[in-house]
Amino acid sequence: MPEVLFKVDLTKPMEEQDVPGHNRWHPDIPAVVSVNPGSVFRIECKDWTDGQIHNNDDPSDVRDVDLTRVHVLSGPIWVNGAEPGDLLVVDILDIGALPTSEWGFTGIFARENGGGFLTNHFPEAGKAIWDFHGIYASSRHIPNVRFPGLLHPGLIGCAPSHEMLAEWNKREAELVATDPDRVPPLANLPSPKGAVLGNLKGAEFDRIAKEGARTVPPREHGGNCDIKNLSKGSRVYFPVYVDGAKLSMGDIHFCQGDGEISFCGAIEMAGWLDLHVSLIKNGVAKYAVTNPIFKTGPVEPAFSEYIVFEGISVDEEGKQYYLDPFIAYQRACMNAVEYLKKFGYTGEQAYMLLSAAPCEGRISGIVDIPNSCSTIAIPTGIFNKNILPT
Amino acid sequence: MPEVLFKVDLTKPMEEQDVPGHNRWHPDIPAVVSVNPGSVFRIECKDWTDGQIHNNDDPSDVRDVDLTRVHVLSGPIWVNGAEPGDLLVVDILDIGALPTSEWGFTGIFARENGGGFLTNHFPEAGKAIWDFHGIYASSRHIPNVRFPGLLHPGLIGCAPSHEMLAEWNKREAELVATDPDRVPPLANLPSPKGAVLGNLKGAEFDRIAKEGARTVPPREHGGNCDIKNLSKGSRVYFPVYVDGAKLSMGDIHFCQGDGEISFCGAIEMAGWLDLHVSLIKNGVAKYAVTNPIFKTGPVEPAFSEYIVFEGISVDEEGKQYYLDPFIAYQRACMNAVEYLKKFGYTGEQAYMLLSAAPCEGRISGIVDIPNSCSTIAIPTGIFNKNILPT
Amino acid sequence: MPEVLFKVDLTKPMEEQDVPGHNRWHPDIPAVVSVNPGSVFRIECKDWTDGQIHNNDDPSDVRDVDLTRVHVLSGPIWVNGAEPGDLLVVDILDIGALPTSEWGFTGIFARENGGGFLTNHFPEAGKAIWDFHGIYASSRHIPNVRFPGLLHPGLIGCAPSHEMLAEWNKREAELVATDPDRVPPLANLPSPKGAVLGNLKGAEFDRIAKEGARTVPPREHGGNCDIKNLSKGSRVYFPVYVDGAKLSMGDIHFCQGDGEISFCGAIEMAGWLDLHVSLIKNGVAKYAVTNPIFKTGPVEPAFSEYIVFEGISVDEEGKQYYLDPFIAYQRACMNAVEYLKKFGYTGEQAYMLLSAAPCEGRISGIVDIPNSCSTIAIPTGIFNKNILPT
Amino acid sequence: MPEVLFKVDLTKPMEEQDVPGHNRWHPDIPAVVSVNPGSVFRIECKDWTDGQIHNNDDPSDVRDVDLTRVHVLSGPIWVNGAEPGDLLVVDILDIGALPTSEWGFTGIFARENGGGFLTNHFPEAGKAIWDFHGIYASSRHIPNVRFPGLLHPGLIGCAPSHEMLAEWNKREAELVATDPDRVPPLANLPSPKGAVLGNLKGAEFDRIAKEGARTVPPREHGGNCDIKNLSKGSRVYFPVYVDGAKLSMGDIHFCQGDGEISFCGAIEMAGWLDLHVSLIKNGVAKYAVTNPIFKTGPVEPAFSEYIVFEGISVDEEGKQYYLDPFIAYQRACMNAVEYLKKFGYTGEQAYMLLSAAPCEGRISGIVDIPNSCSTIAIPTGIFNKNILPT
Repeated sequence: MPEVLFKVDLTKPMEEQDVPGHNRWHPDIPAVVSVNPGSVFRIECKDWTDGQIHNNDDPSDVRDVDLTRVHVLSGPIWVNGAEPGDLLVVDILDIGALPTSEWGFTGIFARENGGGFLTNHFPEAGKAIWDFHGIYASSRHIPNVRFPGLLHPGLIGCAPSHEMLAEWNKREAELVATDPDRVPPLANLPSPKGAVLGNLKGAEFDRIAKEGARTVPPREHGGNCDIKNLSKGSRVYFPVYVDGAKLSMGDIHFCQGDGEISFCGAIEMAGWLDLHVSLIKNGVAKYAVTNPIFKTGPVEPAFSEYIVFEGISVDEEGKQYYLDPFIAYQRACMNAVEYLKKFGYTGEQAYMLLSAAPCEGRISGIVDIPNSCSTIAIPTGIFNKNILPT
Repeated sequence: MPEVLFKVDLTKPMEEQDVPGHNRWHPDIPAVVSVNPGSVFRIECKDWTDGQIHNNDDPSDVRDVDLTRVHVLSGPIWVNGAEPGDLLVVDILDIGALPTSEWGFTGIFARENGGGFLTNHFPEAGKAIWDFHGIYASSRHIPNVRFPGLLHPGLIGCAPSHEMLAEWNKREAELVATDPDRVPPLANLPSPKGAVLGNLKGAEFDRIAKEGARTVPPREHGGNCDIKNLSKGSRVYFPVYVDGAKLSMGDIHFCQGDGEISFCGAIEMAGWLDLHVSLIKNGVAKYAVTNPIFKTGPVEPAFSEYIVFEGISVDEEGKQYYLDPFIAYQRACMNAVEYLKKFGYTGEQAYMLLSAAPCEGRISGIVDIPNSCSTIAIPTGIFNKNILPT
Repeated sequence: MPEVLFKVDLTKPMEEQDVPGHNRWHPDIPAVVSVNPGSVFRIECKDWTDGQIHNNDDPSDVRDVDLTRVHVLSGPIWVNGAEPGDLLVVDILDIGALPTSEWGFTGIFARENGGGFLTNHFPEAGKAIWDFHGIYASSRHIPNVRFPGLLHPGLIGCAPSHEMLAEWNKREAELVATDPDRVPPLANLPSPKGAVLGNLKGAEFDRIAKEGARTVPPREHGGNCDIKNLSKGSRVYFPVYVDGAKLSMGDIHFCQGDGEISFCGAIEMAGWLDLHVSLIKNGVAKYAVTNPIFKTGPVEPAFSEYIVFEGISVDEEGKQYYLDPFIAYQRACMNAVEYLKKFGYTGEQAYMLLSAAPCEGRISGIVDIPNSCSTIAIPTGIFNKNILPT
Repeated sequence: MPEVLFKVDLTKPMEEQDVPGHNRWHPDIPAVVSVNPGSVFRIECKDWTDGQIHNNDDPSDVRDVDLTRVHVLSGPIWVNGAEPGDLLVVDILDIGALPTSEWGFTGIFARENGGGFLTNHFPEAGKAIWDFHGIYASSRHIPNVRFPGLLHPGLIGCAPSHEMLAEWNKREAELVATDPDRVPPLANLPSPKGAVLGNLKGAEFDRIAKEGARTVPPREHGGNCDIKNLSKGSRVYFPVYVDGAKLSMGDIHFCQGDGEISFCGAIEMAGWLDLHVSLIKNGVAKYAVTNPIFKTGPVEPAFSEYIVFEGISVDEEGKQYYLDPFIAYQRACMNAVEYLKKFGYTGEQAYMLLSAAPCEGRISGIVDIPNSCSTIAIPTGIFNKNILPT
């Protein structure tokens, strides 16, 4: 087993860990450990909510979650020799659950808590607990499904530079300013409330807490991309913006459908990642890299048959949108939900299933004015009964 | 070989065929042939432009294409016993090229002709010709790639009811009315110019030509969905809206990346489909079907490794959008284009390659405000050289 | 469609074709056509029995088959520039059925006709007819299965040199001599009876008919290898032994399980192959090639689940053999047959199904004295009902 | 993490473990633990040689291995309620390495030690050490390859009944009697030397040590089948012969090519299995089960391209054998070895690579007298350079 360079104690919140991580992006959060290119090591991670959700049948913890605390990340890791303009090559050698925590959760966030992709249909909080059985997960809250995991870090990336951070804060503030009183807000701007910044204290804590970007959205450094295919065996090429790269990660998912649609929608878990790091000097310019790129891994679960649902960019009231894959994907997902209800699932169960199972969500057509066509493809093999029309 | 129920002569435009097809959607276009449930038959199709694009190196035909003539469809096919509310089950048994026409084309539409997904970057018309070599395609205009086809009908569906057609025309007109002078328009409303309506003539032609919906967008009946995975061996369940179902199809693609991003972006071809049809009576209600659903086929080309590019919903000027997978996919595609340019491709070549090759375009994250994350995954095996960073 | 360089008329036996092929291996059979390296062309083939088996429900044609006439091959094809020691690179671009002959057959050979792999259990002749439905096959004689084809030429290879032919005849005669009166014989030695040798006549016909090797076994040039994975999209590297290479082929299979166990055990068909040829000069020595090697193709049917049966090298009477994968595979196959009988199949149906469906037959363990372990893996997706224990 | 029902201390030989396992098959070896149907648990296993092989560059440990001690097994596990005639259903939920032992070995056994499949070519002992990097393995002794594991227990099965054991001993003794002085022997008959039988002592130990079958060969209960596809996520159905089933297992492999050709030929490792067990009462008769059957798992490494080598049943001296897949597979393997030598590997490296990597070894043709055709298919993706002819 590789050396564990970042440990977590699941009984304690992130700020009380022996070596605390962080939940904001900022170049000045000190690194907690350093590694050499070529080294292999293990990083443990808490679940993204810092342990707020419990293995029980009561969704009130999802309803009452404190989102100022998300996502708790492990890191930053200093990579010796990394400089701005380099590509940090990260091999995700393996991912697993912590031995004392072989379960995960999928939540539907209540509308007042930000909601999810189908919040107009499912405005109440909901929760499904998943038990891991080796490579498989099943849920006492969603019957008749069992599937192998497609484990991946929902969130991973290098620290931004000061300039990049300033740009993030500026553009997101401009967006919020277009509708400042919106509930939920259009974006989560920096906020000291709930901030965890490693061992920082005092004025430095206050400064960074005030400036640090929230971890919610994916950005050009990667971050909370929630890409299900960034799984075991992947090789990721991250742009480096600051000396030492300052790599952080968290939000491990046992599995997820494309879009992670119920927001807390993957099978969220605590766990660990085994990583190998190396550098491509000046790789950013050499390969014209803006966002991270990655090579997929070889052990994604194999499914040979999917049932596919289409959606177009006309909303449920019949309003026509122009090439809008968001609306189209909502319609595809709702078409799948309505279909699954005919097989005995509640709408909430179907919603969480699409969110958590290894479903393919594709931008199938994006140029045929005025409708885009989005599709969601569900592997039929995850069900223990026939799910096709007969 | 199954009986050919719809033949095409590639040397003649659609209206001069022995049995002409159509290029508008309308319930009153007469069926050209009838079939019984349980039967197997072949339908030949012209390419979507009705033969306007030629196998040469000059993109002026793409630039000057007459889009009032698209898409020329084969049909309608009357299915005996089909009634509104049924599901028409269509097995796509096989798809192929016509023996005299084993080539296809990918076009970049000029901005003044509607453009494509990346038209701001590629405003000029472009064209790549692909030669088919059995299961493979290669192009003299895009070197160092060869890949097996993922053949599919870009467009297939049943005729709308009068009510549905009226709804389409109403909602699309309302969209156009929000910016009526826009060039290109927000949608293509019904227009007699260029209409082909089987053998209809006179007043009935005029009425239907004036009412018939354009075939450009996908709609709830299916239509021009451009779903690459609706390929050989798929089983599709189409809602039926009119007696006899009136199934039509066309726009065969040898292959396509998700989104068909350059608009004329698949490998467009003339060809044939072998189909088997059956009915599920009252299937629409039984399975709560709104749009078509389908089961995927078993012979999609196998790729075990992809290189993936991410994009987020911040445009190139740095403007932040709210959960916009359209912008995010544009950024992912442009990231891929810039990367491929480092391997010797022109931007136009890269654009057409992403559009035509079997790339996966996914809505990876859609809930992490304010950024959605879209990804485009290119199979590395389509290149005859290493395309990974080294 | 590529130019057809070898045509067949299915209504006529091979010797009456306009350009007859051959059914013996000999370097002096004249080439029927020549091609340049780099060219693409189509070759049509009769089924291996030269049309002796008919699309009906009566297996007497299988019982009474004249095996002196097999396998009728299309060729030889002269490749310009090919010399002994080169590698002839053959891309199998596509394979298909002839439009008038979209069906195939699987036969059980009677014991007196040579029998098959399980002839002790199934000594009587049997036959199953398969109908092709695009990419799929199904049989009125074996219910509840349907599967996509894995088309391949059962037999393909270059002509042997005189020295190689002499070696074949010598070693096979020596084997026969160890038990010369055995019925069936240990090998089929050269025999003029039934020989077809292109347009040869007179003394030259008599000489070659007397010397020409039978086509039944695979040999170091390839020949009747019956490798199911030598399918669409494969690239094969054949050793060249004579000037012009003299490539011949036939025995097209719509599908086959590993071993082709019932002898006439694939889904045998007439059909065509589209080929591209090129040369690697002196490739035999460069790559130390003895037998042909090949790269697999990308469109093999995808199955994600198999049910696997094991067998060991102890025969049904309890006799222990030493590391004998032949006995072990017989036991694995019989275990599968007995299992399938519990799901309603007759033994003969199960035997033909294992023989014709895309089953994996593996030498799983070959060193654990005294037992080898062979396995046969059946894709569960070929059945339209659950085939697993419950 | 499931409860560990069988622990191993890698610093001690099997007989000194707190709860020792066994290395002989006998119905009277006492169970070490009992489980209920429906339970999930973890079993740790030592490597098959009981720790005789070391992580260094010296193959003398392979040369001098004491084979009287193999295979050390964990168990027997008593399954409550299991009776003869039942099927014991074992879900292999996951398999992994022990945290202190993330490496494995592949050995070539010297001829005097039993040798391997190609011992005539490689009579000397050899060894390759593999390091595990998460899902991947690589070897400092075999350069330029890295591949994901296909972990499986080489050996797993239920205890035989007394009658079955007597049958094994009888038939194997009869085989040995045909050539009693052969070196190596045709089979390993029961021998007290090296026997480990749990906590048994005294007369009972002596009796069972004298009767107990060696674990080397696979037999009808399963045992040392060395089936690479019996991997993570598989569901196995084992016949039960004695009350409590008495399930034992060991010989974990990180990966293996079909045949495990160099004898100690997989990537041999210590490790653990997470299992779920249940029962199908009277399942043996219900499903006509003789040997175990299994359903494959969903996370086998995906390879989309293989290079395939053929072999026929003519040995290297040119002698013709009759339908002998053993000889044919030897020739296919040697063809692959000779080819790989052209790419810079030594013969020994190539031999161990074929043995340890996830190669497919198929009985491709088994009926075309007198030659069978065996093939070995190597995934090209395991090499970090091009391995195809150019």
